[in-house]
Amino acid sequence: MHGTVTALRTGLEVRLASRSGGFDGATSGLAPGFVQGNLAILPRDWADDFLRFCQANPKPCPVIGVSDAGSVAIPALGADLDIRTDLPRYRVWRDGALVDEPHDLHAVWRDDLVSFVIGCSFSFEEALLQAEVPVRHIARGSNVPMYRTNVPTARAGRFYGPLVVSMRPLAPADAIRAIQVTSRLPAVHGAPVHLGFPEAIGISDLARPDYGDPVPVEAGELPVFWACGVTPQAAIAAARPPFAITHAPGCMLVTDLKNARLAV
Amino acid sequence: MHGTVTALRTGLEVRLASRSGGFDGATSGLAPGFVQGNLAILPRDWADDFLRFCQANPKPCPVIGVSDAGSVAIPALGADLDIRTDLPRYRVWRDGALVDEPHDLHAVWRDDLVSFVIGCSFSFEEALLQAEVPVRHIARGSNVPMYRTNVPTARAGRFYGPLVVSMRPLAPADAIRAIQVTSRLPAVHGAPVHLGFPEAIGISDLARPDYGDPVPVEAGELPVFWACGVTPQAAIAAARPPFAITHAPGCMLVTDLKNARLAV
Repeated sequence: MHGTVTALRTGLEVRLASRSGGFDGATSGLAPGFVQGNLAILPRDWADDFLRFCQANPKPCPVIGVSDAGSVAIPALGADLDIRTDLPRYRVWRDGALVDEPHDLHAVWRDDLVSFVIGCSFSFEEALLQAEVPVRHIARGSNVPMYRTNVPTARAGRFYGPLVVSMRPLAPADAIRAIQVTSRLPAVHGAPVHLGFPEAIGISDLARPDYGDPVPVEAGELPVFWACGVTPQAAIAAARPPFAITHAPGCMLVTDLKNARLAV
Repeated sequence: MHGTVTALRTGLEVRLASRSGGFDGATSGLAPGFVQGNLAILPRDWADDFLRFCQANPKPCPVIGVSDAGSVAIPALGADLDIRTDLPRYRVWRDGALVDEPHDLHAVWRDDLVSFVIGCSFSFEEALLQAEVPVRHIARGSNVPMYRTNVPTARAGRFYGPLVVSMRPLAPADAIRAIQVTSRLPAVHGAPVHLGFPEAIGISDLARPDYGDPVPVEAGELPVFWACGVTPQAAIAAARPPFAITHAPGCMLVTDLKNARLAV
């Protein structure tokens, strides 16, 4: 990571810094107010199944943009956007196995690839903080804890797998407020899927997340669970397409969309 | 109680049956779809404090109608409404003590009285059932359990007292849905005020409600608490005005308003 990262104040600035090679880090906290997204890129003959999977599982997989096959542009998400270069880092998968983590996709790009951008919890966390709902993992400077549940996603073609959730501990009044705030944001996972009883969704130990870092749940707080954008990555891992690309963890696509315009 | 109660299908029909003396029972389940309200009637020199109390405590005391002093009409709530006769039964209070439970107010009416109608949980329970959220006390045919909390209301002039809440046990996904549904209904108590930890709001034993009937909270369910229209009655009991009138428990004013039009 080089340069003055905190100077990256818009989606375009983050994309240009990534494109130039000047920035290859995590995007959390950059370009405040701009929508960030999870990326999944699949060959055309897998793309229809994947889009149906997202449609059938809108809470973990809210699609906010899809490219034409072979196109590197997604005009709805960003003027001047080139999906091959505009994320800080990518992961390349073959037959379900991670094979590379490049800074751009020039060496692996194909004319049959379809790019999917999926809403991300950064947007609703910004809305929670604006509503004065505290978000503990942000206060601690750690990653949100995420868990594979025993709740199956709705299968679509070759894609299936468990619902993955993120957890934020909240006092009851804050949990109610958080449900109100995130209900208005279906494009970025929407309302929680569960609260109160982790074991009811197959989570045996909150202190041992499957991804991210643990955060303590204090006395008088409820663990509140949201559908998580890692769910589609778990479905890609289960489906094992011969070729796929995702963002590297934490290195999201930063778009030109504004969080302030997401609420329904 | 006489006649064919189930034939009372509109607010006007319930009011006319009450006015004629043909009906003096509880209004739960009558006139489906019509907004029912709690009633409080106070002398003019107490009415300003009471209205300020309601304004300062909108969740327990959402005012849906106020009369002119001395007027028996509230045109916004019902054509042809006469507040002296149109409820099945009333309670008359002197210096904070219950002194009578008449079927009409002809014998006690005064030209300085102001009538307040406050939204009622019947409306949001109808919305919950329409959203396929089960409401246990309705399924059991009992009254909702209500509790005096250790949460103070905001004092206004001579009116003060504890927040009174009603409780409905819900599975987590139903609790989330119930928060969404009732958030859109601020005129009838709105979103819950608490869930999960009764002791945090001063409730030591859910099996012993202060009003209404207990309902069991099953394993895997959260107790969910809404601000309750008994709160203003507790404030009137605390303030001890020399004269006041309320509805008798369960015998609400049925209006011409429709529940379907309440959502914001």
